[in-house]
Amino acid sequence: MQPNTRRIVILGGGFGGVYTARALERALKNDPAAEVSLISKENYFTFHTMLPEVISGEIGLLDTVSPLHGLLPRTRVYVREIESVDLERKVVRLQPGFARRIHEIPYDHLVIALGNVTDFRGLPGLHEHAMSFKSLADAISLRNHLIHVLEEASVEIDPLVRRELLTFVVAGGGFSGVEVCAELNDFVRKVARERRVGRLDELRVVLLHSGERILEREVPASLGKYAEKILRRRGIDLRLNTRLVTASPAAAILSTGERIPCRTLVSTVPSAPHPLIAALDLPQNKGKITVDGQMRVTGCNDVWALGDCALIPLPSGGFAPPTAQHAVREATLLAHNILATLHGREMKTFAFAGLGKLGALGRRSAVAELMTHVRLSGILAWFAWRTIYWFKLPGFGRKVKVGLSWALDLLLPTETVQLRLNSPSALSQLHYEPGEAVFLQNDVGDAFYMILDGEVEISREDEGQPPQRLAVMRAGEFFGEMALLGRQPRSATVRALTPLTVLALRGREFHALVDHIPNLRGSIEQVMERRGAPVETGDAT
Amino acid sequence: MQPNTRRIVILGGGFGGVYTARALERALKNDPAAEVSLISKENYFTFHTMLPEVISGEIGLLDTVSPLHGLLPRTRVYVREIESVDLERKVVRLQPGFARRIHEIPYDHLVIALGNVTDFRGLPGLHEHAMSFKSLADAISLRNHLIHVLEEASVEIDPLVRRELLTFVVAGGGFSGVEVCAELNDFVRKVARERRVGRLDELRVVLLHSGERILEREVPASLGKYAEKILRRRGIDLRLNTRLVTASPAAAILSTGERIPCRTLVSTVPSAPHPLIAALDLPQNKGKITVDGQMRVTGCNDVWALGDCALIPLPSGGFAPPTAQHAVREATLLAHNILATLHGREMKTFAFAGLGKLGALGRRSAVAELMTHVRLSGILAWFAWRTIYWFKLPGFGRKVKVGLSWALDLLLPTETVQLRLNSPSALSQLHYEPGEAVFLQNDVGDAFYMILDGEVEISREDEGQPPQRLAVMRAGEFFGEMALLGRQPRSATVRALTPLTVLALRGREFHALVDHIPNLRGSIEQVMERRGAPVETGDAT
Repeated sequence: MQPNTRRIVILGGGFGGVYTARALERALKNDPAAEVSLISKENYFTFHTMLPEVISGEIGLLDTVSPLHGLLPRTRVYVREIESVDLERKVVRLQPGFARRIHEIPYDHLVIALGNVTDFRGLPGLHEHAMSFKSLADAISLRNHLIHVLEEASVEIDPLVRRELLTFVVAGGGFSGVEVCAELNDFVRKVARERRVGRLDELRVVLLHSGERILEREVPASLGKYAEKILRRRGIDLRLNTRLVTASPAAAILSTGERIPCRTLVSTVPSAPHPLIAALDLPQNKGKITVDGQMRVTGCNDVWALGDCALIPLPSGGFAPPTAQHAVREATLLAHNILATLHGREMKTFAFAGLGKLGALGRRSAVAELMTHVRLSGILAWFAWRTIYWFKLPGFGRKVKVGLSWALDLLLPTETVQLRLNSPSALSQLHYEPGEAVFLQNDVGDAFYMILDGEVEISREDEGQPPQRLAVMRAGEFFGEMALLGRQPRSATVRALTPLTVLALRGREFHALVDHIPNLRGSIEQVMERRGAPVETGDAT
Repeated sequence: MQPNTRRIVILGGGFGGVYTARALERALKNDPAAEVSLISKENYFTFHTMLPEVISGEIGLLDTVSPLHGLLPRTRVYVREIESVDLERKVVRLQPGFARRIHEIPYDHLVIALGNVTDFRGLPGLHEHAMSFKSLADAISLRNHLIHVLEEASVEIDPLVRRELLTFVVAGGGFSGVEVCAELNDFVRKVARERRVGRLDELRVVLLHSGERILEREVPASLGKYAEKILRRRGIDLRLNTRLVTASPAAAILSTGERIPCRTLVSTVPSAPHPLIAALDLPQNKGKITVDGQMRVTGCNDVWALGDCALIPLPSGGFAPPTAQHAVREATLLAHNILATLHGREMKTFAFAGLGKLGALGRRSAVAELMTHVRLSGILAWFAWRTIYWFKLPGFGRKVKVGLSWALDLLLPTETVQLRLNSPSALSQLHYEPGEAVFLQNDVGDAFYMILDGEVEISREDEGQPPQRLAVMRAGEFFGEMALLGRQPRSATVRALTPLTVLALRGREFHALVDHIPNLRGSIEQVMERRGAPVETGDAT
């Protein structure tokens, strides 16, 4: 690095961050004025718009993403989580990698492009059981989960469990929720038809939206109505003015009080600021960083912000909307303005009206509003959608691959490989609503439970007798050890009496602890004995 | 099902099982004599031979596999783990799915095609830290891990950690180990060159083999020597007569006593029988089920076995070797013989000499022995390898996709997307060898540790003073809570005094437990206080 080279550090690997780095790379080609670093959680850039197509497999698993190193050959890319930003010392602190040390990156100019997140914190049940849909990992996990429940439904004999397996709930009626729901609906119906997974009328796909109509912020009422008609015609059960309140492993609970038994729950809401932004001592408005028309953070000379995490004023009044097309244009301008400050040139002010809006509705249908005048729907809008986004895919190789995937998808049968990379977690947090069973008498015992919050009832039903309450347990107590220690089916049913949060420890790890830690088995057995007292057979759980 | 339809149940979705089901489907097309079920852990068939190519991304992530439903449209496919087989009651018991009930499948004829597994049980350290290479999930996990360590190496400043990150150890000198090592070597060198991840001479790839020469059981000495020459020329550090003894998170320990610091350890050995087979009361020899020349299990009328889990006598003496080409032919014959018993026709006896052997050596090189006479090596063998296996890929769609992937691989830059589907496990078992550090003073504290086996020393080094031993802890004791409770760096170093096994609980889950379970914080703090006594500042870990 030359002595007066400035260090520009970009936080975030989405549209805002990556396109800023690209613009800087181009401008700095033969200019040693600055060097650029970018910090991203993933080592690839995600072309979010096409992510829902991963669900159905219309494009390959990796077709929506491009490695950052390929896009940004002259940028130093750090693939790490950010621990914190020290605005005083002008340093970004990264979370540890293999060596457990904090890594510090000094900057002269900081660009914040962290976007937003789907945040289930403070929403008990959603945190544990709702799947989000922001990243490639989310999309692949959802796809694998769908294939899993369809496989299970094809061999399940209990009609209640089949119904749970074949019910799919999506919360959120913006572009993201609508696109996910449409793709999911197409995919599960297609697979169920091809495989004869039970009767098609057992399938149920529900879309929840808190507002009066879907896409209300995105497109005019006429297009929104059109979208609703298309979704309903495809068999989607559309619930307006309805929110998702909580969830358990086998149900979604709605603001109407209704409980929908299901094993698949996706939520694209609520959207929240990136947690790092809340922690920064920068001027903010509703979770967004306030900047001037040049995208410099109010009151700072060396901190900039763009994209979904910034509130960028438009000369026409109002603020730049959080879309990819805006982020890309903001990036170009921001790169220009940083270099302008370095070279003492004049900065430019952001002004872009937007080219239009596009939303896919699954099988050969979409809605589009172009240039604020042209409104398209149906196959024409779908064709516009594919064409426009294909041109916008970064890089030649990516375009070739997506084109080939689309072509092959027309020719070859649906691909339904379930990619299971992770074994079920050894320790997981679960949430139940009152009345729901954590497990039933005679179930296979595969986990040990610690109550974090709420109360449970332990009960037993012996043949020909009414159910008998054996005990009530509270936070700090544990249950489920007996079936594990005795390697036998559950001897009682455990139900939530209140909203309940438990930590479940898988059987294998429970045995590792009990077999190795002296006195642990003894103290668990003591508790079991104490509990056993009221019932003569001595087994409570 | 018609009243006298027989139920044929096949265990295993590898070459033996899938090709038996395919042959039965063909033969039973218009014959209601039997219906076929197949039980597989995964919902796809894996074309193992090409699995190593997934590492380098020469073929797409899913190009080596085909969904079972597509291959076997008329077979009932259960995607489940098998709990047990009851030979008396003639029932296969499946592990629970979403509903925690055992599912029972009755059979009239049982076909066992469970193959073998890589089994690290009883090998401390390998169980925790060695990656196996049997399945698609293994291949993708290894690829993602390689990309991860290369990313980290590109930003790591500590030279010792860089060396660990850039060292790759593969154990096993059979076809599988050699192919994995060759692909891994090509891939990491190519990425390191393209990305300028430090100096190329920092890269180190080690292949361990317990025998005198690699591929000793697979090909004649001349071809084995040729393969060794190729691998050495590509920079692989080949260690013959050397076994992997144990491992820790940052090292492989060899039978020579040498300790190789590394963050990547793959082992394709030891191969062991499928655990279910050991539990079956069937005649066995060295972990394989003994069958007659018709593949009927010795002494049984309704149980059959084939593939890597069966010991099939050849008329020429000896037994059928465990290769895919044998399994496929065994499958055709076995299908014929089952139907022959149903229809009272004559059975056939297995006799197949093998067509040859093929092993890839990475970049445009291979060894081949065809028809026992023709020996090929180099690019000719590589071309034979690709051609033969391409023809053997099941299904037209699969052939098209693999062909396209190979073509694109020549044209487009290396794809290096790191697919992280799973967050690090909340609870994981770790193994350390004497002298190794679990963590160092001033490290970031991110986990709580429970000792399952062995002893640790807690020590502290204050500036200008010699290291001071604070305590020794044993099985059942815990450490690491202080940095978590105080949200501060580690105040001491913890090292293994003996071979050590610990359970590590991630910080987030530790806090969930401490914050919710009454008295837990109190009792941990009591222990901390007690420990604190010998040191004045009161902090031991």
